[in-house]
Amino acid sequence: MDYHFSDRVSKLKPSAIREILKHTSEPGVIPFAAGSPAAEAFPTESIKAISDSILASDPIGALQYSITEGYTPLRDRLKNELAKKNCFTEGRDDLIITSGAQQANELACKVLCSDGDTLICEAPSFIGSLNAFKSYNVNIVGVEMEHDGINIEKLEEALKANKKVKLLYLITNFQNPTGNTLSLEKRKAVYELAKKYDFIILEDNPYGDLRFAGEDIPSIKSMDTEGRVIYSRTFSKVLAPGLRVGYVSAPAEIIAKMVVCKQVADVHTNIWAQQLCDRFMETTDMNEHLASLRKVYRRKFTLMENGIKEHFDPSVKVTEPEGGLFIWATLPESIDMLEFCKVAVEKYKVAVVPGTAFMINENDKTNSFRLNFSTPSDEQIVRGCEILGKLTKEKF
Amino acid sequence: MDYHFSDRVSKLKPSAIREILKHTSEPGVIPFAAGSPAAEAFPTESIKAISDSILASDPIGALQYSITEGYTPLRDRLKNELAKKNCFTEGRDDLIITSGAQQANELACKVLCSDGDTLICEAPSFIGSLNAFKSYNVNIVGVEMEHDGINIEKLEEALKANKKVKLLYLITNFQNPTGNTLSLEKRKAVYELAKKYDFIILEDNPYGDLRFAGEDIPSIKSMDTEGRVIYSRTFSKVLAPGLRVGYVSAPAEIIAKMVVCKQVADVHTNIWAQQLCDRFMETTDMNEHLASLRKVYRRKFTLMENGIKEHFDPSVKVTEPEGGLFIWATLPESIDMLEFCKVAVEKYKVAVVPGTAFMINENDKTNSFRLNFSTPSDEQIVRGCEILGKLTKEKF
Repeated sequence: MDYHFSDRVSKLKPSAIREILKHTSEPGVIPFAAGSPAAEAFPTESIKAISDSILASDPIGALQYSITEGYTPLRDRLKNELAKKNCFTEGRDDLIITSGAQQANELACKVLCSDGDTLICEAPSFIGSLNAFKSYNVNIVGVEMEHDGINIEKLEEALKANKKVKLLYLITNFQNPTGNTLSLEKRKAVYELAKKYDFIILEDNPYGDLRFAGEDIPSIKSMDTEGRVIYSRTFSKVLAPGLRVGYVSAPAEIIAKMVVCKQVADVHTNIWAQQLCDRFMETTDMNEHLASLRKVYRRKFTLMENGIKEHFDPSVKVTEPEGGLFIWATLPESIDMLEFCKVAVEKYKVAVVPGTAFMINENDKTNSFRLNFSTPSDEQIVRGCEILGKLTKEKF
Repeated sequence: MDYHFSDRVSKLKPSAIREILKHTSEPGVIPFAAGSPAAEAFPTESIKAISDSILASDPIGALQYSITEGYTPLRDRLKNELAKKNCFTEGRDDLIITSGAQQANELACKVLCSDGDTLICEAPSFIGSLNAFKSYNVNIVGVEMEHDGINIEKLEEALKANKKVKLLYLITNFQNPTGNTLSLEKRKAVYELAKKYDFIILEDNPYGDLRFAGEDIPSIKSMDTEGRVIYSRTFSKVLAPGLRVGYVSAPAEIIAKMVVCKQVADVHTNIWAQQLCDRFMETTDMNEHLASLRKVYRRKFTLMENGIKEHFDPSVKVTEPEGGLFIWATLPESIDMLEFCKVAVEKYKVAVVPGTAFMINENDKTNSFRLNFSTPSDEQIVRGCEILGKLTKEKF
């Protein structure tokens, strides 16, 4: 059979870096390529106890069909929490539960962008979101990412150069893959541009609670006076990603369309998992819980930071994230990045993600790669930095 | 703000029957409008025990990120099960776990149909699938549903009249909403047409295990020699719908595209739920379990069938399903169906779904409504049939 696929998916070609990535899950490989929460950050005892209590008290309620919008007590709880940070405006916004923030971001694009509409994002950006946008035939325009977030001048140039810019997609805190955070000044500037050029901001904030240095910066959502911001969050990094529970706060009219699309996507999110998140928030001192997570990530980041300082050739530039899961390293031009990543995993069993994966177009040039410090054990971090460091000093 | 939505969702208009449906979940209303498995059909004790054991033995494994394709032991188990019924062909097919069959059906459309391509389905058909297809700007053509399934002559007419027919969507057993089953002869005829007119069949089989009368009929998938059938199934009706675990068996090339789209949709399906399904199948005598479910549904169906025979005006025609959850009732022309449904829920507190909900276009005429016998209690079935019966004898 010769299958004819839709024009949506024929654009989603298998990546040229697949060959490198396929080695990353082999046994014995140090997993700097992953993006999973640290195993020691899972409150497993608490989850077990809550699950028991859910399945004991109202099993049918945890197993039966539910409504697309999500488990009402959890929605109400999250609305309250977000309202405290001005990220939910009563009377204007609504909030629904999604199957991870991935679904929230995909739905935002699906309901707002017709084929050929333009979506602007940071370059580089998160591959999962980029592919979601591509699957809706959107014209994706990348704007240079700096240490304090997207380049505002170049963003305005892109806004002038492209008609029908519907969405600006930003990961505002400890961005994936760079680890960089959008500064307060730039957040304000971005919002002003949204008003001036009439577009919607999709503010993705999966890592915001994992700040291990510096001070929290108000979200763009909290500055939103006009109803221009869709704010997506997730339990993946603060509780457990396998649950696939995210949520999104946005103007009610946008949420209403997202609900219709979520209904056709998966009817609703696993209801046991939603109840678990609700009870976890109810029974846990969240400040204490988040403080303990930050401690774990601070330790792991510091280990990697020290390892890099000690072993990497000084010609390699790395970002200095104040939270999240990732460091972005840029090799000097004398080193071929793809070759470096290939040798690292194939010969030395240390897997990193070639920066190419995060480019808007796979042909866009980059000499960077992404390092993750949450998945590897402390020992793996130390050893992996040593190995990669040696490699940065070799000639390619 | 004046929001501009994509052309995909602007077609998904709020339904005119919303006013009727919004009463259906009010307390005291007899839920003949629902489609949920019977509460007494949930193996809650077994689910509790399995969940305990999963969270005790490998909590991180049940809570961490997993692969998009699904939990490997569950996939292997389902491949084996389907292979026994010739619904999985080793070397040609692949199988992935989806977030309910809803996601499988949506992904099939997303990967195969570009804007404007034609998808043919039974008329009436399941509203959730119709809306999924509409959200991809597909040209949906409905073909008359008969007591033994889609009208084959009219199907061939539709195939001749429409270019670029990519997909034929069929719910082959105890269809939603009619309860009708596609006969063996028609299954063969449909497959011959697929070869002749070169299209793919999306065979949706959520209710096949709930046969309470008659004999099983081989699936179209089992007749597939060329790789033309996508076969979607779910744990929603045999275990618990709140888990949102479905699966799809199809030629590997199609599955590969579906995996890319599933990855951007929700990364993967809740992993605890996948493990639960796997252990349930491992530790349960599935034949015994399904036999006990069939007993429940046979009892509830018979109660409703008897209630209809005893109380409904003989001018009302009803289908005679041999399984599943639904009966389709057609009123005589003297009765205004929408008015009947409105009065039933508002005045007499019995909710049914107006047939309009299942029409391809909301303006398509129908004088039918859908009755569900799995959600209401036995007492509610008896009382509800009495009330509706009286109403069929009133003048509108």
